[in-house]
Amino acid sequence: MNATPPFLNTTAEVDQAAVQPFANSRKVYVQGSRPDIRVPMREISLSDTPASMGAEKNPPICVYDTSGAYTDPAVKIDIRQGLPAIRAPWIDNRNDTEQLSALTSQYGQQRLDDSSLGELRFNLHRTPRRAKPGMNVSQMHYARKGIVTPEMEYVAIRENQRREGLSELILSQHQGESFGAAIPKLITPEFVRDEIARGRAIIPANINHPELEPAIIGRNFLTKINANIGNSALASSISEEVEKMVWGIRWGGDTVMDLSTGKNIHETREWIIRNSPVPIGTVPIYQALEKVEGRAEELTWEIFRDTLIEQAEQGVDYFTIHAGVRLAYVPMTAKRMTGIVSRGGSILAKWCLAHHQENFLYTHFEETCEIMKAYDVAFSLGDGLRPGSLYDANDEAQFAELITLGELTKTAWKHDVQVMIEGPGHVPMHMIKENMDMQLKHCDEAPFYTLGPLVTDIAPGYDHITSGIGAAMIGWYGCAMLCYVTPKEHLGLPDKQDVREGIITYKIAAHAADLAKGHPGAQIRDNSMSKARFEFRWEDQFNLGLDPDKAREFHDETMPKDSGKVAHFCSMCGPKFCSMKISQDVRDYAAAQGVSENEALEKGMHDKSVEFVESGAQVYHKA
Amino acid sequence: MNATPPFLNTTAEVDQAAVQPFANSRKVYVQGSRPDIRVPMREISLSDTPASMGAEKNPPICVYDTSGAYTDPAVKIDIRQGLPAIRAPWIDNRNDTEQLSALTSQYGQQRLDDSSLGELRFNLHRTPRRAKPGMNVSQMHYARKGIVTPEMEYVAIRENQRREGLSELILSQHQGESFGAAIPKLITPEFVRDEIARGRAIIPANINHPELEPAIIGRNFLTKINANIGNSALASSISEEVEKMVWGIRWGGDTVMDLSTGKNIHETREWIIRNSPVPIGTVPIYQALEKVEGRAEELTWEIFRDTLIEQAEQGVDYFTIHAGVRLAYVPMTAKRMTGIVSRGGSILAKWCLAHHQENFLYTHFEETCEIMKAYDVAFSLGDGLRPGSLYDANDEAQFAELITLGELTKTAWKHDVQVMIEGPGHVPMHMIKENMDMQLKHCDEAPFYTLGPLVTDIAPGYDHITSGIGAAMIGWYGCAMLCYVTPKEHLGLPDKQDVREGIITYKIAAHAADLAKGHPGAQIRDNSMSKARFEFRWEDQFNLGLDPDKAREFHDETMPKDSGKVAHFCSMCGPKFCSMKISQDVRDYAAAQGVSENEALEKGMHDKSVEFVESGAQVYHKA
Repeated sequence: MNATPPFLNTTAEVDQAAVQPFANSRKVYVQGSRPDIRVPMREISLSDTPASMGAEKNPPICVYDTSGAYTDPAVKIDIRQGLPAIRAPWIDNRNDTEQLSALTSQYGQQRLDDSSLGELRFNLHRTPRRAKPGMNVSQMHYARKGIVTPEMEYVAIRENQRREGLSELILSQHQGESFGAAIPKLITPEFVRDEIARGRAIIPANINHPELEPAIIGRNFLTKINANIGNSALASSISEEVEKMVWGIRWGGDTVMDLSTGKNIHETREWIIRNSPVPIGTVPIYQALEKVEGRAEELTWEIFRDTLIEQAEQGVDYFTIHAGVRLAYVPMTAKRMTGIVSRGGSILAKWCLAHHQENFLYTHFEETCEIMKAYDVAFSLGDGLRPGSLYDANDEAQFAELITLGELTKTAWKHDVQVMIEGPGHVPMHMIKENMDMQLKHCDEAPFYTLGPLVTDIAPGYDHITSGIGAAMIGWYGCAMLCYVTPKEHLGLPDKQDVREGIITYKIAAHAADLAKGHPGAQIRDNSMSKARFEFRWEDQFNLGLDPDKAREFHDETMPKDSGKVAHFCSMCGPKFCSMKISQDVRDYAAAQGVSENEALEKGMHDKSVEFVESGAQVYHKA
Repeated sequence: MNATPPFLNTTAEVDQAAVQPFANSRKVYVQGSRPDIRVPMREISLSDTPASMGAEKNPPICVYDTSGAYTDPAVKIDIRQGLPAIRAPWIDNRNDTEQLSALTSQYGQQRLDDSSLGELRFNLHRTPRRAKPGMNVSQMHYARKGIVTPEMEYVAIRENQRREGLSELILSQHQGESFGAAIPKLITPEFVRDEIARGRAIIPANINHPELEPAIIGRNFLTKINANIGNSALASSISEEVEKMVWGIRWGGDTVMDLSTGKNIHETREWIIRNSPVPIGTVPIYQALEKVEGRAEELTWEIFRDTLIEQAEQGVDYFTIHAGVRLAYVPMTAKRMTGIVSRGGSILAKWCLAHHQENFLYTHFEETCEIMKAYDVAFSLGDGLRPGSLYDANDEAQFAELITLGELTKTAWKHDVQVMIEGPGHVPMHMIKENMDMQLKHCDEAPFYTLGPLVTDIAPGYDHITSGIGAAMIGWYGCAMLCYVTPKEHLGLPDKQDVREGIITYKIAAHAADLAKGHPGAQIRDNSMSKARFEFRWEDQFNLGLDPDKAREFHDETMPKDSGKVAHFCSMCGPKFCSMKISQDVRDYAAAQGVSENEALEKGMHDKSVEFVESGAQVYHKA
């Protein structure tokens, strides 16, 4: 319940813990067809296989890197300046946008004119861009015209994650079951273009967010995750939210939704966007509701429209729009256990009932499309009627809304506007696939973006896990992006550690999905980890993990710091019981003798044991 | 790396945090057909629905309670005395066992005779029991003779969890997909008998563990979880292990495996069993290896046999026996990424290769059965060749062993010995079902008991989650018991918080599985939670959760302690954005007006808003 402190420039710093590079990792850039297409990856260097096991070189592994310039020691971070506008020349070159002389949103202009906000405000030296009259600047529009944009090339390079130079062993993987996805061996820019044209993938990339490092969301690409941040009326300040964003992308957030409510959300959002290399999503109805002081029934299309423009001109990359909460569906929720649990859904349901009129987001949907295509904001069609309990899963209200979202998808596509579809929520495991199948069918394979789903309601405090299970499964079935849930879900606002826990859980879910789908290259990191594990390369195990810091910390709790990391056993079983050590003894001996393992062991196990004792029975080896 | 401290009686106390009852919970006992069949349950009392929402009484909910007498304030806990021997009269009455005059295991007797161990030793005043010559005391044997034992009646009552008096709303649930399981609406003692006779379920219940509160493991019963504890050569003392056991059952461990290694494992085990209300499992080969000072090749059947008897006479309820690691299968692991990762498997592989002989556990399997049936120890046929990495999942070695386990199952059943089958390990999601299907087929529906499986290798520090995903799925497919994995897996030994985290994760997985299978009554707790959530009964939400303490703690971090718990919104969204509050406003108003929600809102939403302001815009209500 802190009051928001003045957001002084002096406090506008990022926590060092959020920006320091991971051990043995360096930022590399893979260049595309032009020098300003520089796709960042995190290269993890690995140590050699120990001499006793063959002294093999282990080439570095590249992993998908969402952390932006923050983890590049060559870049000087100053969040008062924001990130470099890497996309500016690409947007410029297309010559279909104009620099506005002023903000066109009334509210945006009003905030800019309010000198009392000077202290809070990000000092942006440019005015927004908008499509020239009659132009459409969406990636989908370009794709349908056959144009491969730099954004498309960028994501193609990024998805492939530079696999050259890896051994067959590290590259090998199980075939997977993709349930009808069409994932190619190698992602080409042309494939990206085709998927976007088809509506099966989106690159959320507002022309007013030139700081963006583009990413693609679609079932034929790596499964993505979203992290929600945002203060509420009750707590947290602007600087905390910027820091949460930087923290979130460090751990792997592919997109970030700013769900802030309260007084200064306009300014908060500006700081976040200017410093975010990942797409930023919002739920504009939250801010619209602030503008009518929380009285849902007083919302109007005009207020909402101005909010869309305000946010589009700041650079928000996708909007959650609850246009599927139709008046006729609201009574379907009356028999539910938990009614309407989407904040946006409940606001619009209240509006619909109060006015006894059709949802104005539905009736003004085409006008919304006009705005979206002038800035290239993607739709995230909100599931305002998602179930809030297992009891309510897959009910009439939920699927009625989904079918409407399918219709709206086609309307948006008519305008060449990019679309993804939001999904539940709370669903028992055996009913998850029906959600995916219904979505694919009714929304014609537009990317699905789900919250969990939670597979049980009984574990408050652990809903990152109840939902991580459902997320992994729906990701496998074809969901393109998984919205994280933190341990605080249903209980309170996540702090930084909750954000980290939520993100790692969802990275696990997304990666497990990629593995199960048989996504090319998905198993590289697993194989590298397993090889490091078998060869007792402890540092490599930590560094290859999703959370190297935690792995190292846990290991060091039981094992002495330095000796532990070269020990040929782990602290769980000790030297005598280490199965990996025994397996390795067997192989080493066989290799040394040049005979088969059976023969080697038959002859040599006794010798090995004598040798072990004679060598002083030392279980630690010098590094 | 602490040395084991002398286990003084004065330290033999249980942490108060591990034994205090949960808030608003009380231990109840449901009596069976005889007064000494008293089945414990935890009854959670719930508050009434607030007056504004109908003042409905919410009857208490019973949940499965593994915590034993520890959470019964009426029982005086003294771990030096052990738990009451509730099964003693049942075993006595069967009149097929004899009280031995002394231990029949050489090693057991030797430890007893060693006066230097006096300080460490649990002071047991009885000698062990064994079947009278020619008798078979296994639950399977009774079941096949048509006898319903008190143990069978006990588990039948326990599985049903007293559902009387609950409303239709709370009892309602989704149908589920059980993949061919045959779960009846109500579990009867006769059904239990039939399942045990058929080999499809087991009640691990050594006649020397009369302190046991019987539990059943089988695909047609509630999914169970196991918690591993145990010190290693490197750390932890006896008292810590007893405390971990008590802590583990508090959070819901259905069985506990003592995987201790090191000097005093005999004494550690005795303390654990005497104080454990849940079945205790062990891996006897670990202790046998200690007896030959870690030299696997020096193991003999005689040493192993004495170990089995030693442990059977202490009261171990199930033994992991790696009899499927056959000589011919060991070379199949040579091409693996991570070789053999089961400790027991690697020990036996080493023995097989060193001697170039068939695994002595395989060749002496029938003699082992003779021991098992004299004490009613159940087999947990170990998967010594389980995969230790995704790369190695579902390979030739793994399935060769599984088929052998199927053969051994039939051999054990010939002796009326209870059997379950251990399973992997590390398996990507799409390859999990094949494990379950193969197991059902080759092991003829004997209960499956898996470790995870982990669905990715890349998250050390979070392997409770990587494995919880796989565990939930395989539980759904038919796995009867899930062996937990803690966050420390692959890195170190779990401490108490890791044990709690691992168990709650696995309770989630097991419960999610029951829900997906459509297990009768499984959704009661979810429905109760969801109703409490919708009605803003915060205390009930905490108390119905798997970890009430953590839920309460998380909630209190953001919300002021007392007001928060009666607030009609939660700290995540604040009052304006609370969807549940809005949903409820709608319903309340409709109910008050006696009109439909639509009409009510059309007429009244404005009035409500006026009323809210007039009443002082207070968002907190007095309790």
